[in-house]
This record gives sequence, C-alpha cells and structure tokens, in this order.
Amino acid sequence: MTASRRTRLSPQARREQLLELGVRMLSHRTLDELSVEEIAEQAGISRGLLFHYFRNKQEFHRAVVQRAADDLIETTAPDFTLPPLPRLFRSLERYVDYVQANQHAYISLVRGAASGDQSLREIFDATRAVLTARITDNVDMFGLSDGPAVRLMARGWSAMVEEAVLAWVQDPQPEHCRLSKDELLRMLTAALPAVLQTTG
Amino acid sequence: MTASRRTRLSPQARREQLLELGVRMLSHRTLDELSVEEIAEQAGISRGLLFHYFRNKQEFHRAVVQRAADDLIETTAPDFTLPPLPRLFRSLERYVDYVQANQHAYISLVRGAASGDQSLREIFDATRAVLTARITDNVDMFGLSDGPAVRLMARGWSAMVEEAVLAWVQDPQPEHCRLSKDELLRMLTAALPAVLQTTG
Repeated sequence: MTASRRTRLSPQARREQLLELGVRMLSHRTLDELSVEEIAEQAGISRGLLFHYFRNKQEFHRAVVQRAADDLIETTAPDFTLPPLPRLFRSLERYVDYVQANQHAYISLVRGAASGDQSLREIFDATRAVLTARITDNVDMFGLSDGPAVRLMARGWSAMVEEAVLAWVQDPQPEHCRLSKDELLRMLTAALPAVLQTTG
Repeated sequence: MTASRRTRLSPQARREQLLELGVRMLSHRTLDELSVEEIAEQAGISRGLLFHYFRNKQEFHRAVVQRAADDLIETTAPDFTLPPLPRLFRSLERYVDYVQANQHAYISLVRGAASGDQSLREIFDATRAVLTARITDNVDMFGLSDGPAVRLMARGWSAMVEEAVLAWVQDPQPEHCRLSKDELLRMLTAALPAVLQTTG
C-alpha cells in the first residue's frame, strides 16, 4: 500500500490531486498519451473512482488542459509594481518558463485551438482572450486607445509570441548555438509596441 | 450521361480535375465534409476510378490540401517590379483574397499544422517555410541580414498574419463596422519591418 493509497482525501482535494498529476504527466507526454489508468495508479485510487470525479476520459483530458491554461494565466499575471515594458518582459519570461517546463501541456492547449474538439477550442479561445485583454485593457501605456485595430494586432502579437516561443523551445540546436532566452524576451517585448504603433 | 461523363481525359488531366473540384468544395466545406462520392459524381466518374488516382480518402484529402497550399504560394508570389513595401502589400492583398475565397481550404491547411496528422503538418510546415523564405531571403531590403533572430521573428510575423487575416475574414460584424481591408493590409505590411527591427 502506497502512502497515497492510505490517504483519505476530501472530494475537492482528490479532484485537485488528479488534475495536478494530469498536468505533470502532460509536461512530458502528449494528450493522447495521457493515461487515466496510470493517473489513478499514481493517486492510489481505482480507475472507477477517477470516473466518479470525471465522467469519462475526454472530460478528464479537458479538465487537465483547462488546469494547464489556468496555471499559465496565473503564472504570467502582470506585476503592476513594474513599469510597462519591464512588466511585459517579466510576464513573457514566466510564459517562456512555463512552456519550457510544460511543453506538452502547452502544445495540447495550442493544438486544441486548431483541433476539431469544440471544448478544447473554447479553452484556448478563453485563455487567449484573457491574455489579450491584459494588453488591450492597458494600451494607454503605449499612448493608444482600445479599438478594433488594436484588438486585431494584439491578437496577432499573441499568435506571434505563441509561435516564436514554441519554435525557440523546440529548437533542436544545442543551447550555445541558440538565441539566448534574454534576446528572445527582449525582441518579443519590443515587438508589442512596434506592432501596436501600426494601428496609429 | 453528363458532358463530363462523356469526356475522356488523360490520367494527368483527370487527376488535375479531381484536385480542382476538391479545392472548390473546400471553399465552403471543412475537410471532414469533403465527400469523395460527390467529387466523383461531379467529375462524372465512378468512386472506384477516383481511387485509381488516389489510394484512399486520406490520400485524396492530403492531395487537395497540398493543391490549396500550392495555389496560395503561387497567388502570393512577390512582384519584384515593385519596391519592397508595395510588393509586400500586394502579396498580402492576394493572400487575404485567397483566404476570403477559400476559407475552409485555408483553415484545413492551418489546422493541419496543429493536427496529429503528420502529412498535413508537413504540408503546412513546407508552405510556411516557402512564405517565410521570401522574407528572410530579402531582409537586406530592411537593412538587416539573415540569421536566427531574423528567422524567428519572420516566422512570428507569419503567425501574426495567419491569425489576423483569419480573425478579420471570420469577423461576424457587418462589413461597414469592420476594419477595412486596406487598413488591415497597411497594418500587416508596416508590422513586418517593425517586428524585424527588434532583432537589431
């Protein structure tokens, strides 16, 4: 009997534990490889009990991707004690750190956007809406005001960040041949005001 | 007997015809809705004969997406008689026109990028590589030289264009409330040198 097998958790704590194990498994496996059996085993519960918390495998997968999205939103929360550009740099830094530590969870989130799975798509859209609103709600810091043009370009910048960060993280070259993380962050930070200025 | 049923085509011409019918069907339907039966009927041939040209439904789907990608590359070919920024504006204009006219074909291409389907992914990657090389091969026009930073940001800009154009095309607002196409093109054109300058 493992320690966890002996532990009695409240339903809420058990649900949390299963989601955390799911996100952890997604750091090194794809969503398709996320095994409900292994998660149940790691939690020291039966497969049947897992399905007491999540109706089926799809629902568990979606809940894990939602948790990954929530983690990403939380970890990149802007630090309003910093001036605008250092604040953006810091959020991007935590974003890159998150993607590095949770590659497959992040890819599942981004792939969900393009997949036929409507609920994964909704998680992605809602996540990007939160991240983009952080920009459009604060464009006055760049001397601009919110509107359709600013919204479209903020959304475009977000897509650029997703693409560039994923390309950087997945770059197969050895670290000393790659662009430094600092350089990546500096460029993406500078790109936001540059892109938003095109709306003026 | 329809006219096309009576027509004898060379194998090459028949293959072309089937691909063109496929791309046309993808202008208003998703890849999943692309019906091999209907395509065969429109071409006036049997389903069996279609499978003489394409081994199975998947192979036909991939060939249609590849054709859509080839069309996109061809229609956006830079006009080197124009100066750099008008040349970029003109390519982007044809890109937006293509996406408007072939929405589902374009979405299938972009979704293929994120899908688990390895061959759709390869079509997308190869297409984006061609489009991005048009930028990186000509960055001297912005007073820059090719390198990892320029490549990463050119790739990021491509993702921005994909996102912004798709968002603009799918915007449910009536046309007079939307950003004008000219404004969209102007911003995306200006965004390229702006984004590339961050590498300096």
